[in-house]
Amino acid sequence: MTAPGVVHSMAGLSVRQDGARAVVRSLPEETPIAVVFDGTTAAVMMASPEDLRDFAMGFALTEGFIASPADVAEFEIARHDLGIEARFWLHADRAAALRARRRNMLGPVGCGLCGIDSLEQAIRPLPVLAADGLRLRQGEVAAATAALRAHQPLHDQTRAVHAAGFLRQGAGMVLAREDVGRHNALDKLIGAMAAQGIDPRHGAIVLTSRISVEMVQKTVIAGCPVLIAVSAPTAHALRLAKGAGLTLAAFARGEGFDLYSHPERISTGACNAA
Amino acid sequence: MTAPGVVHSMAGLSVRQDGARAVVRSLPEETPIAVVFDGTTAAVMMASPEDLRDFAMGFALTEGFIASPADVAEFEIARHDLGIEARFWLHADRAAALRARRRNMLGPVGCGLCGIDSLEQAIRPLPVLAADGLRLRQGEVAAATAALRAHQPLHDQTRAVHAAGFLRQGAGMVLAREDVGRHNALDKLIGAMAAQGIDPRHGAIVLTSRISVEMVQKTVIAGCPVLIAVSAPTAHALRLAKGAGLTLAAFARGEGFDLYSHPERISTGACNAA
Repeated sequence: MTAPGVVHSMAGLSVRQDGARAVVRSLPEETPIAVVFDGTTAAVMMASPEDLRDFAMGFALTEGFIASPADVAEFEIARHDLGIEARFWLHADRAAALRARRRNMLGPVGCGLCGIDSLEQAIRPLPVLAADGLRLRQGEVAAATAALRAHQPLHDQTRAVHAAGFLRQGAGMVLAREDVGRHNALDKLIGAMAAQGIDPRHGAIVLTSRISVEMVQKTVIAGCPVLIAVSAPTAHALRLAKGAGLTLAAFARGEGFDLYSHPERISTGACNAA
Repeated sequence: MTAPGVVHSMAGLSVRQDGARAVVRSLPEETPIAVVFDGTTAAVMMASPEDLRDFAMGFALTEGFIASPADVAEFEIARHDLGIEARFWLHADRAAALRARRRNMLGPVGCGLCGIDSLEQAIRPLPVLAADGLRLRQGEVAAATAALRAHQPLHDQTRAVHAAGFLRQGAGMVLAREDVGRHNALDKLIGAMAAQGIDPRHGAIVLTSRISVEMVQKTVIAGCPVLIAVSAPTAHALRLAKGAGLTLAAFARGEGFDLYSHPERISTGACNAA
């Protein structure tokens, strides 16, 4: 069920070789969302205005503002004409840590950093995923993006939004979230998994998009050991995945997939086909 | 000709129902680029490391850091292990205006803004495009994304990057740029057009992506009156385009397109077919 305001019917003109006719299309909304910690904005993102609590919680987790939902003392959504605020109030220890981090990010000139400092902050050191016994079947991985398609009501209406889903080993696609932005869809999924107590170590995150550096960073920080996507990884994302112990499967499109890093978590070959 | 370091050959395993075999794929690189004005970083973006001068110049123009290339006193690219800096030094008047803007963006707590201030800054007021006599033929618009496909060497190698091109009225696709990020491809195109003196009022910008708010903002600020894309606009992007006088054509895929705003710049219907 799509929330009100997430999709709008807009009038257009369908122009074809044999003429033009009036049409009404369902277009996805895109709303500025400010994520605010203790009164200070961390970021404003354009997002599909649904599952906002999941989005804010996932963003706070994957960008390191909180280590777990237990760091949050209070949370509220405030709607304005211009957009939406997702407001966190953190417990005292965490709030103090964030203030210290913010002070460290202040450069010598106003609020700006010099270029080299900024580059260092852009590539965060990633943890290395702990060893696990996860082993997905080749068929589960190959079918993952098709399974995700069954959980994309917003895309069915608009043909223009991304999704991220969680494939639990042996249980199929147990949860999915959608957004106009691929990072947002992933943050929503990770926030929803935290809220529902779904352990990310027991399966794979599945994306409708390509695999960029930020998608690897968020997946590893969430603690999920496998990332499956319909499109390609970047070379940089693949290097990060190798270093962090993340299994990357790309170009997953029904008939098969490409496996780029840590293949030990996916059983392949004829002997595993049964 | 793709610059060195923009594409990497990476080893993987192609997994299909009948078995797995080793493959080498061309994956696009993704590099952090810090755009720095007079020693202070404005933003760090992950981008394909080619056409960096076009990228930095386009970003500076479309994000309002400079009003024209004449504001730039000096420019240099500095390569580091962690990424690349694009360094601008501005003429004194412009530098003073930027410093004043940066001071206004400082909120009461450290460098952060409260949520409502941040939302106001996220939706910039857009200029309204001046009246023009531009009139594109229906067939030019329908064929635009196919024409862009002929200018995507990086996508041909990697199947995973975006492009933005400029379709000049009656002259076809005269310029195109590629990047892993759709915003970056558009900034590169706009920077390259400024460098080459191509007047954006005489044609359309063509995108391989959807049309989000930021794509409309950048196109209008660049002064181009028509935006054509292979995918959908968001509802918010369409409202902005209507207000700014921008013609939006979406789902442009050979056989036709959808026309959502300011249709007067595109001749449609049988009487214009000749």
